[in-house]
Amino acid sequence: MESRRVEALADGVFAIAMTLLVLEVRVPELAEPVTGTGMVDALAGLLPSVAGYVVSFVILGMIWIGHHNQFRFIRRVDRALLWLNIFYLLCVAFVPFATAFLARYPLQPASLLIYGGTLLLGGLMHLLHWNHAVGHGLVSEEVTPEVAELFRERISMGIAVYLAATLAGAFLPKVGLVLFACMPILYVLPGRIDPRLIEEAAAEE
Amino acid sequence: MESRRVEALADGVFAIAMTLLVLEVRVPELAEPVTGTGMVDALAGLLPSVAGYVVSFVILGMIWIGHHNQFRFIRRVDRALLWLNIFYLLCVAFVPFATAFLARYPLQPASLLIYGGTLLLGGLMHLLHWNHAVGHGLVSEEVTPEVAELFRERISMGIAVYLAATLAGAFLPKVGLVLFACMPILYVLPGRIDPRLIEEAAAEE
Amino acid sequence: MESRRVEALADGVFAIAMTLLVLEVRVPELAEPVTGTGMVDALAGLLPSVAGYVVSFVILGMIWIGHHNQFRFIRRVDRALLWLNIFYLLCVAFVPFATAFLARYPLQPASLLIYGGTLLLGGLMHLLHWNHAVGHGLVSEEVTPEVAELFRERISMGIAVYLAATLAGAFLPKVGLVLFACMPILYVLPGRIDPRLIEEAAAEE
Amino acid sequence: MESRRVEALADGVFAIAMTLLVLEVRVPELAEPVTGTGMVDALAGLLPSVAGYVVSFVILGMIWIGHHNQFRFIRRVDRALLWLNIFYLLCVAFVPFATAFLARYPLQPASLLIYGGTLLLGGLMHLLHWNHAVGHGLVSEEVTPEVAELFRERISMGIAVYLAATLAGAFLPKVGLVLFACMPILYVLPGRIDPRLIEEAAAEE
Repeated sequence: MESRRVEALADGVFAIAMTLLVLEVRVPELAEPVTGTGMVDALAGLLPSVAGYVVSFVILGMIWIGHHNQFRFIRRVDRALLWLNIFYLLCVAFVPFATAFLARYPLQPASLLIYGGTLLLGGLMHLLHWNHAVGHGLVSEEVTPEVAELFRERISMGIAVYLAATLAGAFLPKVGLVLFACMPILYVLPGRIDPRLIEEAAAEE
Repeated sequence: MESRRVEALADGVFAIAMTLLVLEVRVPELAEPVTGTGMVDALAGLLPSVAGYVVSFVILGMIWIGHHNQFRFIRRVDRALLWLNIFYLLCVAFVPFATAFLARYPLQPASLLIYGGTLLLGGLMHLLHWNHAVGHGLVSEEVTPEVAELFRERISMGIAVYLAATLAGAFLPKVGLVLFACMPILYVLPGRIDPRLIEEAAAEE
Repeated sequence: MESRRVEALADGVFAIAMTLLVLEVRVPELAEPVTGTGMVDALAGLLPSVAGYVVSFVILGMIWIGHHNQFRFIRRVDRALLWLNIFYLLCVAFVPFATAFLARYPLQPASLLIYGGTLLLGGLMHLLHWNHAVGHGLVSEEVTPEVAELFRERISMGIAVYLAATLAGAFLPKVGLVLFACMPILYVLPGRIDPRLIEEAAAEE
Repeated sequence: MESRRVEALADGVFAIAMTLLVLEVRVPELAEPVTGTGMVDALAGLLPSVAGYVVSFVILGMIWIGHHNQFRFIRRVDRALLWLNIFYLLCVAFVPFATAFLARYPLQPASLLIYGGTLLLGGLMHLLHWNHAVGHGLVSEEVTPEVAELFRERISMGIAVYLAATLAGAFLPKVGLVLFACMPILYVLPGRIDPRLIEEAAAEE
């Protein structure tokens, strides 16, 4: 209950950041009279921004699921956790800009540094958030050291992937693009957190 | 309770997508001094975007009611359901773009393909979502095979109508427009899901 | 509980419509070097849009309070009520456009017709919403015929004021502007709904 | 429970205002072919708006935490409190404009007057809100006169700092900028409200 409003703010920021992404897909201006070829060219020109929309929406969805999972075990929030959460949301809300930049300059190293850097910083905040919650007894009793460690591993794995994709993108933008586009696939697949562990914990509630 | 935050994210995305639609209705720039005729012409020029706003708002409202009805019976969410929900919301959040495109090029087959395709994909996700929830025991006990089938029929009916309107629009844009504009009428009318069935189920809770 | 998600959608639409209003207050472009006079002129030029922001924010706040009060007594929602609520929100979400139009053409009868018409239609939906809820037994038992009538009177009074301001504005835009700007004052003052009646009802819960 | 929807509206407005801030960070248009120097210059040109995004996001986060803390002790809302809350949110939702103005004209006294004035007015509303809640018995019993006074002191301290930064900025814009940028540091540090006092109160619930 104590964490209810923190979740409400977070859900709001996620929902808005995800929906604002669509504002970067702009209706093209075609010369009149509109021809079939003109339309096909215009639609092809939309592809980078549509791809950016889809990838960023799915990545934000993935991050939101991580937030959701973490808060299932957080029972109380203290001042520091509130702030870590706000710095985390600051990164989340910056994703629409990073996406627009990437869609506009898809082959520039700077684009991948901004995009990857935003996700990387968000991942670090997420890790600090979890460590603080575990370290200050703000999580429920079901969080044994093993569960805490599993979460830590999973978040760290995400950070490592962001770091690799960002570094790759800084030198070979195309490789970075492919890595970011593939990231959701990594997460849609069942994760390393043993589902039985989580379910048992939930069942005990 | 488990599904509370999924509903919060969904309600946020719906509320934002519905409200963002209004950003596509733009204040016209009139030559000074403003004359009565100039104003009437400018207002007439707003009609496509106002119509797009109204139709898309009502269609999104209709889809939200479907989401609302489905979640009344969903008791738990698993990883796959979270992801299906995110892909579903990805389509919902794309509607403002599809609407703006349609309002800008109302008589182009491409516009109706984008608009109808977005709704069609959303409908398919909605169906997969329900099938997964029923098939993996995530729904409450009131969902007898008959209730599950009634929901499935209703969602499939929607998908069939979207498909028909999209295909018609790809060849005869005006027919597609009329079909999409009439869609809400179909749904405002009482549906095929026997209300007594739902109410009995709700009463047993 | 049944009405929880309807309220969540409504709160989302209100929050977004209220916050989107600020997008219509645009940062002016000043000639470099910026002079004191240039800045004063630019700020003076912002006044209509700032006034529009303040008045519409407060009017939407007023309408939200009305929605809040009505839903305190609504216990269940049926299909028709869901739809009336969506048509009501359609008017609410249109207010940012109506405000931007009014701020851009403050002295045009058309502006006041659009602005007043949006509020008027919203008020009518609100009245239909209440009448449906009362007529179909969707409200809690505390709603005696007297309480129902008090709500009806209050909503009707609002509709009458909107109608008067819209009609006046259609002929004398300045009078309409003053009436709309004064509307919140009418509502900030204690209303005709006997607070004891409401509090007793709430206490009985 | 009574205050649930007020919190929902507030959380929505905060989440949207915070996320809309990112719309003011715009993707720069670079001359083709994009050169390394051109990109560096463009990124440097983004600094004021990125700084504005970060500072305003953190300040809004800080204000949201204050709202959150205040509502933990508010048990009921009356008509006047609803209105004070709406006037308070009116200031919160204006922050994206004030931030955009400041990012566009960072060295103009007018920018600091608008930015600081918005925060100052919000702070005053927050103080009136708390005083009204305490004075009309809308807070829970844990709020002893000492707790009420601690809150009052903290809000007043914030108002004093806003006032100082605004006045300084009106004469020396750079000093105002530094003060506003440092404000969050003041709040991230543990506050003067004795945490034991709050925790004891919470424990008694």
